[in-house]
Amino acid sequence: MPDLSEVTRGRLLFGGDYNPEQWPEATWHEDVRLMKAARVNSVTLGVFSWSMLEPEPGAREFGRLDTLMDLMHENGIGVVLATPTSSPPPWMGRLHPDTLPVTEDGRTEWWGGRQHFSHSSATYRRYAAAITEDLAARYGGHPALTMWHINNEYCTYDYGDEAAAAFRRWLRERYRTLDALNEAWGTAFWSQGYDTWDGILPPRLPHYLRNPGQVLDFRRFTSDMLLECYTAERDIVRRHTPHLPVTSNFMPLWFGQDAWRWAEEEDVVSVDLYPDPRDPLGAQHGALVQDMTRSQARGPWMLMEQAAGPVNWRGVNHPKPRGLNRLWSLQAVARGADAVCYFQWRQSRQGAEKFHSGMVSHAGEEGRTYQEVKRLGADLERIAPEVTGRHLSADVAVLHDWHAWWAGAQDGRLSGRVEYPDVLRAWHRALWQAHLTTDFAHPEHDLTPYALVVVPQLYALTDAAIDNLLAYVRQGGTLVCGFQTGVADEDDRVRPGGMDARLRQLFGIRTLHEWWPLDEGESVACEGFGGTLWSEELEGDGTAEETVPYKGGELDGLPAVLRKGRAWYVSTLPEPEALRGMLASIADGVGVRPVLDGLPEQVEAVRRGEVLFVLNHGPEPVTVDVPGTHRDLLTGADVTDRVTLDRHGAAVLRP
Amino acid sequence: MPDLSEVTRGRLLFGGDYNPEQWPEATWHEDVRLMKAARVNSVTLGVFSWSMLEPEPGAREFGRLDTLMDLMHENGIGVVLATPTSSPPPWMGRLHPDTLPVTEDGRTEWWGGRQHFSHSSATYRRYAAAITEDLAARYGGHPALTMWHINNEYCTYDYGDEAAAAFRRWLRERYRTLDALNEAWGTAFWSQGYDTWDGILPPRLPHYLRNPGQVLDFRRFTSDMLLECYTAERDIVRRHTPHLPVTSNFMPLWFGQDAWRWAEEEDVVSVDLYPDPRDPLGAQHGALVQDMTRSQARGPWMLMEQAAGPVNWRGVNHPKPRGLNRLWSLQAVARGADAVCYFQWRQSRQGAEKFHSGMVSHAGEEGRTYQEVKRLGADLERIAPEVTGRHLSADVAVLHDWHAWWAGAQDGRLSGRVEYPDVLRAWHRALWQAHLTTDFAHPEHDLTPYALVVVPQLYALTDAAIDNLLAYVRQGGTLVCGFQTGVADEDDRVRPGGMDARLRQLFGIRTLHEWWPLDEGESVACEGFGGTLWSEELEGDGTAEETVPYKGGELDGLPAVLRKGRAWYVSTLPEPEALRGMLASIADGVGVRPVLDGLPEQVEAVRRGEVLFVLNHGPEPVTVDVPGTHRDLLTGADVTDRVTLDRHGAAVLRP
Amino acid sequence: MPDLSEVTRGRLLFGGDYNPEQWPEATWHEDVRLMKAARVNSVTLGVFSWSMLEPEPGAREFGRLDTLMDLMHENGIGVVLATPTSSPPPWMGRLHPDTLPVTEDGRTEWWGGRQHFSHSSATYRRYAAAITEDLAARYGGHPALTMWHINNEYCTYDYGDEAAAAFRRWLRERYRTLDALNEAWGTAFWSQGYDTWDGILPPRLPHYLRNPGQVLDFRRFTSDMLLECYTAERDIVRRHTPHLPVTSNFMPLWFGQDAWRWAEEEDVVSVDLYPDPRDPLGAQHGALVQDMTRSQARGPWMLMEQAAGPVNWRGVNHPKPRGLNRLWSLQAVARGADAVCYFQWRQSRQGAEKFHSGMVSHAGEEGRTYQEVKRLGADLERIAPEVTGRHLSADVAVLHDWHAWWAGAQDGRLSGRVEYPDVLRAWHRALWQAHLTTDFAHPEHDLTPYALVVVPQLYALTDAAIDNLLAYVRQGGTLVCGFQTGVADEDDRVRPGGMDARLRQLFGIRTLHEWWPLDEGESVACEGFGGTLWSEELEGDGTAEETVPYKGGELDGLPAVLRKGRAWYVSTLPEPEALRGMLASIADGVGVRPVLDGLPEQVEAVRRGEVLFVLNHGPEPVTVDVPGTHRDLLTGADVTDRVTLDRHGAAVLRP
Repeated sequence: MPDLSEVTRGRLLFGGDYNPEQWPEATWHEDVRLMKAARVNSVTLGVFSWSMLEPEPGAREFGRLDTLMDLMHENGIGVVLATPTSSPPPWMGRLHPDTLPVTEDGRTEWWGGRQHFSHSSATYRRYAAAITEDLAARYGGHPALTMWHINNEYCTYDYGDEAAAAFRRWLRERYRTLDALNEAWGTAFWSQGYDTWDGILPPRLPHYLRNPGQVLDFRRFTSDMLLECYTAERDIVRRHTPHLPVTSNFMPLWFGQDAWRWAEEEDVVSVDLYPDPRDPLGAQHGALVQDMTRSQARGPWMLMEQAAGPVNWRGVNHPKPRGLNRLWSLQAVARGADAVCYFQWRQSRQGAEKFHSGMVSHAGEEGRTYQEVKRLGADLERIAPEVTGRHLSADVAVLHDWHAWWAGAQDGRLSGRVEYPDVLRAWHRALWQAHLTTDFAHPEHDLTPYALVVVPQLYALTDAAIDNLLAYVRQGGTLVCGFQTGVADEDDRVRPGGMDARLRQLFGIRTLHEWWPLDEGESVACEGFGGTLWSEELEGDGTAEETVPYKGGELDGLPAVLRKGRAWYVSTLPEPEALRGMLASIADGVGVRPVLDGLPEQVEAVRRGEVLFVLNHGPEPVTVDVPGTHRDLLTGADVTDRVTLDRHGAAVLRP
Repeated sequence: MPDLSEVTRGRLLFGGDYNPEQWPEATWHEDVRLMKAARVNSVTLGVFSWSMLEPEPGAREFGRLDTLMDLMHENGIGVVLATPTSSPPPWMGRLHPDTLPVTEDGRTEWWGGRQHFSHSSATYRRYAAAITEDLAARYGGHPALTMWHINNEYCTYDYGDEAAAAFRRWLRERYRTLDALNEAWGTAFWSQGYDTWDGILPPRLPHYLRNPGQVLDFRRFTSDMLLECYTAERDIVRRHTPHLPVTSNFMPLWFGQDAWRWAEEEDVVSVDLYPDPRDPLGAQHGALVQDMTRSQARGPWMLMEQAAGPVNWRGVNHPKPRGLNRLWSLQAVARGADAVCYFQWRQSRQGAEKFHSGMVSHAGEEGRTYQEVKRLGADLERIAPEVTGRHLSADVAVLHDWHAWWAGAQDGRLSGRVEYPDVLRAWHRALWQAHLTTDFAHPEHDLTPYALVVVPQLYALTDAAIDNLLAYVRQGGTLVCGFQTGVADEDDRVRPGGMDARLRQLFGIRTLHEWWPLDEGESVACEGFGGTLWSEELEGDGTAEETVPYKGGELDGLPAVLRKGRAWYVSTLPEPEALRGMLASIADGVGVRPVLDGLPEQVEAVRRGEVLFVLNHGPEPVTVDVPGTHRDLLTGADVTDRVTLDRHGAAVLRP
Repeated sequence: MPDLSEVTRGRLLFGGDYNPEQWPEATWHEDVRLMKAARVNSVTLGVFSWSMLEPEPGAREFGRLDTLMDLMHENGIGVVLATPTSSPPPWMGRLHPDTLPVTEDGRTEWWGGRQHFSHSSATYRRYAAAITEDLAARYGGHPALTMWHINNEYCTYDYGDEAAAAFRRWLRERYRTLDALNEAWGTAFWSQGYDTWDGILPPRLPHYLRNPGQVLDFRRFTSDMLLECYTAERDIVRRHTPHLPVTSNFMPLWFGQDAWRWAEEEDVVSVDLYPDPRDPLGAQHGALVQDMTRSQARGPWMLMEQAAGPVNWRGVNHPKPRGLNRLWSLQAVARGADAVCYFQWRQSRQGAEKFHSGMVSHAGEEGRTYQEVKRLGADLERIAPEVTGRHLSADVAVLHDWHAWWAGAQDGRLSGRVEYPDVLRAWHRALWQAHLTTDFAHPEHDLTPYALVVVPQLYALTDAAIDNLLAYVRQGGTLVCGFQTGVADEDDRVRPGGMDARLRQLFGIRTLHEWWPLDEGESVACEGFGGTLWSEELEGDGTAEETVPYKGGELDGLPAVLRKGRAWYVSTLPEPEALRGMLASIADGVGVRPVLDGLPEQVEAVRRGEVLFVLNHGPEPVTVDVPGTHRDLLTGADVTDRVTLDRHGAAVLRP
C-alpha cells in the first residue's frame, strides 16, 4: 500500500487547508506568492467545495477547481484533494430530508452549519459516492495530486428512523439471534426482552436510565457506520489511483470513533490538534495526541490541522504568544509528524470560522502570525533531511481502548467525576513529566516490545485482552494498572467479584469489597502520598510482595497499592507528583530512563531517529545539559555539553 | 381490611426485591442458601417480569415464576408479588406508540429504560389489567404469597394528546362548568378565557410563564391518574385475594404523588428510602421519611427498598461505612417499620443498575456487604418479638400537604431559593435534633392528640384547614407557623392582605406590607439569632404578647416573630441552632420533653412500644445515660444507668 | 403628527396598566376611589382583554369595556387604549395551530402563557386587524380616549414554516438575486451556496455553528416582521383617530427589536423599566434606559411600566425599600419622562403575575406600597407645571446600534465573555458617575451637536457610519472608541486588517496583529490603570500623539490607548474608576462639565429645562452644594447654597 513517504519524498509537508472558493481569483495569485515565500509545499483543496462543484443535484462545475489544481502544480505545491462530503449543499436537505441527522430526543439537525448528514442515509451515500467518483476520475491523473483526504472530521450521531433500521441490521450481524442480543444486553432486567428485531431502537430519550449494553452497541455502530462512509469513498478513489495514499483526519480522542480500527483502513493517519495556548499543560496534551496518532500510524503521521493563532470555539479564544506556534509544530515533528499543516491557509472574512486564525491572518502579510509561519517554513525545510521518515522508539506503552471508554461512560456509574480522558491524561502526564517517551497500544496488541506497560483505566476488557496482559507479565513485562480496570467484559457484564478473577490473582487481591469514589475536593491519604478521585476497599490474598496502605479514614490500613512480582495495582489516582514519582521509579527499576538526565521540568526532550529535539515550554530561557557535541539543525551551530533555549525556544540536535 | 400484621405474624420482615430473571436456575438455589443464612423471610418477585411473563402480546409464560414461587415456599420465604406494570415490554411501545409518555415540550419518552408508560393510555391500562388479572388468578392461592405490590415507584408525567383528553375529563368532573374553571384559574388575566373544554391543554411549553392554576390542577390530575392506575390493579387482585394486603411503594416526598390520599387506598404503606451515606444529616432525612410514612400508615409500615451499599444515581455514589446499614435499618424499626427490605437481593451484573448495591454485592458471600446483612438478619430476629406491631406515640405534629407544595412551586414566585422540601426538612431537623419524636399530619387532620403543632410552610390552605388550625388553638393547642403560610387558597388565589385574615388575627398581625426574600448568602439579624432565606415587613395589631424584632436593615424594629397566646408566627427561617432552641423551648413550655435527658447530639433515642432504641449516628463511641436497668435485646446483656455504643452502634433496651 | 404633549396638556401622566377583567364591578368603583386619592390621571386598558372582547372567533363583547371607558371618563381619568393582540385567546391556537410560534429546534410554543403568536402568521394578522378595526371604530370617538397602545412588549421569534416563507420573501426584497445573498452570507465557506430561494431556512438547530450572516439577517427580519405587525395595527387606528398619538411599549435594550427604526414609526416612545432594587447600580441602569428612550423620542417620553414593589421574574425578587419608588420615578422625570406609569394598578390575586407588585398591593389601601404611590402622585402634580414638555440638553453622545450588536453576538466569536450590553453599560456608567448628561445616538445620526462622542463598541459599522465618524472628527468633534469597533461591515464581513483601514488611520494604528481576550478574573496592566475583558496586540504607525502602553505580559510596551488629534482608541475595558477618570478628563478638555461641581458619588444631578433635579441614591442622608437660591418644588421651601437630602431623597429646584 502507498504511504506517507511517497508524498513527502524526504521533505516535511508544510501547508494547510486552502478554501479559495471564498476569494476572487486575484487573491489566489497573492496566495501563491505568500505560500512560496513561506515554503508551503502542500495544500488541501476541496474540503468544503460540494456546493461549488455540484451547485444543483447532478450538476458538475469543475472549472475553478481545474484552475486551482493547475495553479498549484505550476507553483510546485502538492494537493491533498478532499472529497467534499462533510458538508452537503443546501439542496440535499431540502430535496432529501432523510439525509438529515436526528438527535436522541427527536430534533432534526438542519443545514446551515456543516456535517448535517446522516451516516445511515442511503440517499446521502449515493450522492457522496457519485461526486467522489467524478472527482477521482477527473483529477486522479492530475500531476498536482499527492493524496486523498476523505470527508472531514467524521463526528455525527443519528437516532432517526433510517439509522434505527441500520442499527438493527448491524445488530443482526453482530448477534445473529435475538437470544444472543437479549443475553448481551441483559434485557432480563427492567423487562426489556426483545421479541422481534423490529422492536429495537437507538437509545433514544428514555424516561429513566438507558440500557448500557444498547448504548455501548450504539456507539460501536456509530463508529462503524461512519467508517462505512469512509471506506466507500476510499474504495472509489483507490480504484482510480491505487498508487496514492488515502486519509481522513481524526479529531483527537473523539469519543465516537474507534481510531484503532479506523487507522487500519487508512494509508496515512492524520489528526487535527488544537491545544489551548492558555493550558499550562497544553504541550502535554499535544504530546499525548501525537503519541497516540503515531501509535495508530505505526510510523510517521500527518498533522492535518492546527491553528496558527486562536481558534473560535472555546469560550475564550486566546492567540498563541510569540514562538508558540513554532514550538508546538516542532514538537509534532519530534513525535513523528512528517507533515505540519493548518486549518486554514487564509483566515475567512465571512462565515462561522472567521475568528479562527489562518496562516495568513486578518492582519495579512505584515501580521505577526504570517511572519512566524514563514519562519517556521524555513525551519522545517532546514531539518527535514535528517528527520523525515524517521521512527521513534519507546520502551513504555500506555493502553487505551475506545470500547472500554464507551462501556465505562454510562449514566448510572458510581462516579460522574471519573471521566476516562482525564484519567488517561493524568497517567500520560506523569510519564511525560518524567521525560519518558511512550507509545499507546491497544490491550490486545503485542506488548512484548515494551519494558513497561501502563493501564490508566480499562473498565472493560475482553478475555483476549486479559490473556494478553497475563502473558505479557508472565513473559517478563512489568504492568501497572490503575483503578477500575477489568471490571466488566466486552458486553459490559460485571465480572464476578467486581474485577476479573485472573487480574485479582495477578495483583494478589482476594476481595474487592466496595468502590469508594471521592467527592469533589476530597482526597484520601495513603502512606507517602495523597490519592484523588477514587479509592477501593480491597482485601489482599497474602501474596502481594509490597503494599502501600491507606492511612486513616474508612480504609485505614487496607492496601491502596499492591505489587505482586511485576504487576502493580493502584486503586486510587495518586496526586500528579506521586504518580510521576511512582512511574519513574518503576521504569527505572526495569531500565527505562529519560532521554536526557537532569532535564528541567519545563523542557521536553525527544529523540527521533538520530536527532534529539529539545523543547522549552517555559516562559523563561533555560539551559539544558546535553552531553557531547551536536549540530543544531535550526541554527547550523555546534553545541557542546549544554544548550540554551529562549522562552519557547527549541534545538534540533544531530550528534 | 387485611394489614401488615397478617404478613409479619410477630416477625420483622427481612429481605428485598428479587429479580431472578437475570440469572440461571443454578444461581436461584445458591440464592436460597444465602437468604436462609441471612434470615431472609420475605422477597418481592415480579417487579420487572413483564417481558418474561408476556414475551409477546397476549402470550403467557408462567413457568419460571411457578418454579420460583414453589422454591420460596419450600424454603419458608414469603413472597410479595408485584404486578410488572411499571416496565412494559418493548413490543408495547412498538405496537402502541400511544402508550408512550410525552414531555412538556413534545418529546416522546421511548422504551429502553423503564416507566415509559402513559398513565392516561387506555391501551396500557388494558394490557396492565390483563396481566394483573392472570397473575392474581394463577398465584392468588399460592401458599408463598403474602402480599401484593402494585407497579413500582409510580412517577411519570404525560403531556401528550391522550393525557390532554384525560385532563379535560378530569377538569369537567372537578369544575362542572367552564365558568368555574375560568374563575379558578383566573383566566381573565392574560386573555386566557376558555370558550370550550376542547381548548384546554396540559401546561405545555409556553412562550412565557404558565398559568399557575392550570399547573396546579395538572399536578393534581397527574397524581390522580397514577392513582387510578394503582386502584385498577388493586381492585383486580383484591377480588382474587380479599384476605391479602396490597401496597405500592412510594418514593419519599416525591413531588408528583399526594401520598396522604394514596395511603388511604393502600392496606400497607411502604416506602423506598435512600439517604446519602455522606450526608451529615442522612439520619435526619431517614427519620423524616420514616415519621412521614408511619403517619401515613397510622401504624407499622414497610421499608420496601433501601440500599445495602451505594446507589447508582447520585453524581458520586458512596458505599455505606461499616455498621451504617445496620444502624439505619434499626432506626427504621425504631420509627415503626415492621419490614426492612432492600433493592435488591443480588446485585445485577448487567443493565442500568449494576452499580446499585445488592444484599449480595459483586463481592459475593465473602464481601463485607453480605456479611453485614447476615448479622442484621440475626439482630432483627432477636428483637422482633418485642417490637413487631408496636406503635409509637408523639406529642408533636408537623403539618405537610402536597397541594400546598404544588401551589407554591410556581415559576413566577418571589424567591426561587425557597424550596418547600428544604424548609420542611429544616423544621423537622430542629425537632429531631431536639430529640422530640414527631408525627406528620395533614392540615385537615384531627390535631387534638398533639400538644404542639408545627407548620413549616403551607403556602396554600383551604378554608377547612384554616378552621382546623384555629379550632386546634382555641381548644388549647400550641401552634407554630413558619413564613409564607396561608398566602393562597386552594385555587392558588392570594388571600386578601397576602395572608389569610383569620391567621393574621390569630398571630396579631395587622398588615403584611411586603415579603423580603433573601439572596444567597444573605441573612437578616433578629434579636438573639439570625434569619435566613426570607423575611417579612409586618405590622402588628397590638395584640401580640411577645415579639422578637428584626435588628438593623430595612426591617429594623419590625416583628420577626410574634406570639399571641398559644399561636406563634415566625416570619423568617431561623438558623438551625436558633430554630431548634425555639422549638425545644416552646415544647418544654407545653410539657413535651425529649425521650431521654442529656442526650449527646449525635445520639438518637426513640421509644417504640415499651422498647427504647438508642442509636449512635456519630463516628466515635459514646456513652449515654439511661436511668434504670434494661435488657439490651441485641446482646442479651443487662445495662444499668448508662449504655456505651460503638461508632454507628445501637442498643435496643427493654425495661 | 400628534405627540405626547396633546395627552399631557401640562400635566405629568400618572397611572398604569389597569386590568379590571380580573375583578367584579364593585372593585372597579373602589379602584376609582383609590386612583383619585392618588392623583392617577391615566390608565391603560385592554392589554389582555382579547378573550373578554372576542370570547369566540368573531364574537364581540364590548359591554364591560364600554362601562370602564365611561367610568374613567366620569372620573377624569384618561385612557390609553391597548389593542389586545399580544395575547390571543385559547381558541386561536386550537383552531389555527399555524398561529403558534416554533422554536429553533422545532418545539411549538403553546397557549397558556402569553405572546404565543407567530409574527408571520397571516391568520394571526387577520384576526389582529379585525379586532383592532372594531376597537378603533367603537372607541375612536370616546372622550376618555387619549392615546393608542399597540400590542405589548413585542418579543417573539419564530422558526416555523410560515416564518421561513416570510424570511425568504424578506430576503428576496433585500438581495434581489441569490448571488447577492450568497455573497453577503459568505456561503462559499462550508458549502452553503443556495441554488434556489426555497432552500433557505431560518437558522434552525444545526449540527455545528450557524452561518452568522444568516443569523444576522434573521434578527433583522424578526425586528421587521414585528414592526409590520405594529404598523398594520397603527395604520388602522390612525385612520380612525388621526389626532391621537400611537405607541407600543419597548422592553429596554431588548435584543430583538431595532428601537431606532421602531421609534420612527411611533408618535410617542414608551418603555418598560425594571431596575433591580438590589443592584447597587440600579439607578445607573435606569439612567441608561431613560437616556436611550429620550434619545429615541427626541424629546419627552413615556415610562409605560415600572414596578411599585417587587417583580416576579428574577430568581429572587426584592421589594423596593421605602422611598425608592419615588426616587426612581423622579429620576425618570428628570431625564425627560412626561409619564410615570406602572404595571399594574392593582396586584393580581391569580395568574402568573400575582407576585408582581401593583400600585395597590395585596396589602391594599393601608399597605406601604399604595401609601407611597399616593405621596408620589401628589409630588408629580406639584412639579408638573415646571417640567412637563421641557427638554434636556447633553453635550455627550454614546453611540449604539442594534445591527452592530446583532452582528457581534455570534456563537463562534473570540470571547463569549464579551457581552455587548455589559460593555455599553460600563461606558455609560463611567459617564453617569462622572455626572455628565448624555444622549444616545445612532452611528449614522448627525453628531455635530455633541462636543464628545463615545463608542463603547460597534463591532460592525457601515461605510456611511464610518464616514460619519470621520467627518465628525474632521469637523472638530472629539471621538473616543472602545475595543472591537469597526471590525466588520454591515454584512458581518471582516474588514481587511481586522479593523477598518480608515479607522486605523484615524487612530494611528498600522497593524492589529491579534485580539487578546481575557479570561474570567484576568486583568491586564496598563500604565496607570488595569484593563479587563479584552486587550489587543497593536502596532502604531507613528502618528499617534499620545499612547498609554500595556505593562508586562505578552503585550508589554504595546499601545493600550492611542490618541491622534481628537480621536482616541481604547483597546481594553479600563476598570470603572479608570474609565470614569479618562472620560471625565477628555470631557473637561473639550469644555464639557458636570451639572454641579463637587457632587458626592451617590448623588445624581440632572437639569431639565430650567429645573434642577438632585437625587440621593445612597442609603444615608447627604448635603449637596447648590450655589444660589432655589425653590424646591417638592416642598415649596427656598434653599440657598446647599440642600440636604434624606436617604433616597430628592429635591426639584427651580432657580
